[in-house]
Amino acid sequence: MNPVIDLLKKHRSIRKFSDKEIADEVLDQILEAGQWAATSNNLQAYSVIKIRNQDKKDELARLSGGQQHVRDCQVFLVFCADMSRIHLSSRMHEVPAHLDTVEPLLVAVVDTALMAQNVMVAAESCGIGGTYIGGIRNQIREVSDLLKLPDYVFPVFGMVLGYPDEQQIPAQKPRLPREAVVHEEAYQADRQPKAIESYDRVMKAYYEERTGGETSTTWSEYVSRIYREPRRVHLRGFLEEKKFGFK
Amino acid sequence: MNPVIDLLKKHRSIRKFSDKEIADEVLDQILEAGQWAATSNNLQAYSVIKIRNQDKKDELARLSGGQQHVRDCQVFLVFCADMSRIHLSSRMHEVPAHLDTVEPLLVAVVDTALMAQNVMVAAESCGIGGTYIGGIRNQIREVSDLLKLPDYVFPVFGMVLGYPDEQQIPAQKPRLPREAVVHEEAYQADRQPKAIESYDRVMKAYYEERTGGETSTTWSEYVSRIYREPRRVHLRGFLEEKKFGFK
Repeated sequence: MNPVIDLLKKHRSIRKFSDKEIADEVLDQILEAGQWAATSNNLQAYSVIKIRNQDKKDELARLSGGQQHVRDCQVFLVFCADMSRIHLSSRMHEVPAHLDTVEPLLVAVVDTALMAQNVMVAAESCGIGGTYIGGIRNQIREVSDLLKLPDYVFPVFGMVLGYPDEQQIPAQKPRLPREAVVHEEAYQADRQPKAIESYDRVMKAYYEERTGGETSTTWSEYVSRIYREPRRVHLRGFLEEKKFGFK
Repeated sequence: MNPVIDLLKKHRSIRKFSDKEIADEVLDQILEAGQWAATSNNLQAYSVIKIRNQDKKDELARLSGGQQHVRDCQVFLVFCADMSRIHLSSRMHEVPAHLDTVEPLLVAVVDTALMAQNVMVAAESCGIGGTYIGGIRNQIREVSDLLKLPDYVFPVFGMVLGYPDEQQIPAQKPRLPREAVVHEEAYQADRQPKAIESYDRVMKAYYEERTGGETSTTWSEYVSRIYREPRRVHLRGFLEEKKFGFK
């Protein structure tokens, strides 16, 4: 189609990095590109914490379940939902700020994710690679304390960035068939069982090839494990402490 | 920097469209680019409803607070958080699926937003423009019924797409100073009041220029109005009906 779409279609998670450093000026351009993402009502309800300090990366790796690539990356970014500027603005103008309902929570999370995806795309356009780190929600209180996050701010995910080790670039993971996720005019629920079945075959072959036949999970089997137990149930209480809410 | 970053930095919300149609093949490439966005644990917890039918666009415009550009766009996309395939997979493998806590809600919303931002960037790379429509959450039950969304699926936002009317391309809205949203090693709360003050001046000038002096709001004043009253408080109940939750 065009070079931008080609770039988007080439995405893969990079977890093995070369020693090449990310220059500050390059990172600044990437983060500026992030800021140009759309934002609901111009709230810009996000903040990014940029971490280069090795001790801090080590600590964040530990808090994210021991992920080696958090230690090894050139830069670790923590993307936070941030309603603190909105709260401050409301105080400046002496009006109430009802930030403890579901809507502002969704808005802040969406704003943060749109911004982060621009950062990922901009980074990839510079030959940098990375992956999102949901693991920072494992011990979200400790991460939040380490980064001195104030009220109305919480970490949604991290992102490791670095120039890829060209010898260890992983294969692309196939995606669900388009007809499973794109629907015409209304949701087509009857398509889903067949789409899952077909994707199961694709992913089984993918896992077998990657592990030399050792692993042969299907997609449905793999994803069925993720919420078998309730996951990260501390989130609700933590978000309430940070003055978000679910009203 | 490079053409991709240049494209990201040129983003603006497009609400006025030409008559030029978006070809199906172009839209398909754009949606495929969306699917290549990163996804948490390969859940791909999203669906997109593609709407070209004029009656449906009219109805969705009405349900979104009468937004003319929802009527006028070439294609209206509704981006849904979708845990239904995960639920189905869990049933196939006869394991429980704990989808009523905050974590899967966040995961599905983030997955949806990352995918949508790839769609926006891919569209813009083809000369198409658009804007996100949070207004579909105004009457989210009606939108959901219209699109026949099943359990474990809810609409997060819409997106209007079309080729811009070149005579009516809006100015870019300035963003918060970088130092307000990008922090080094830890959150710098003390920077925020000064950053808001400086951005207030920028946005006041922007509104004055755009309205020939008629409107002269500051940013802090503008955003302080948004949550003065609790917003879209029906969301909590609706999400629970759709089997999401806040445990």
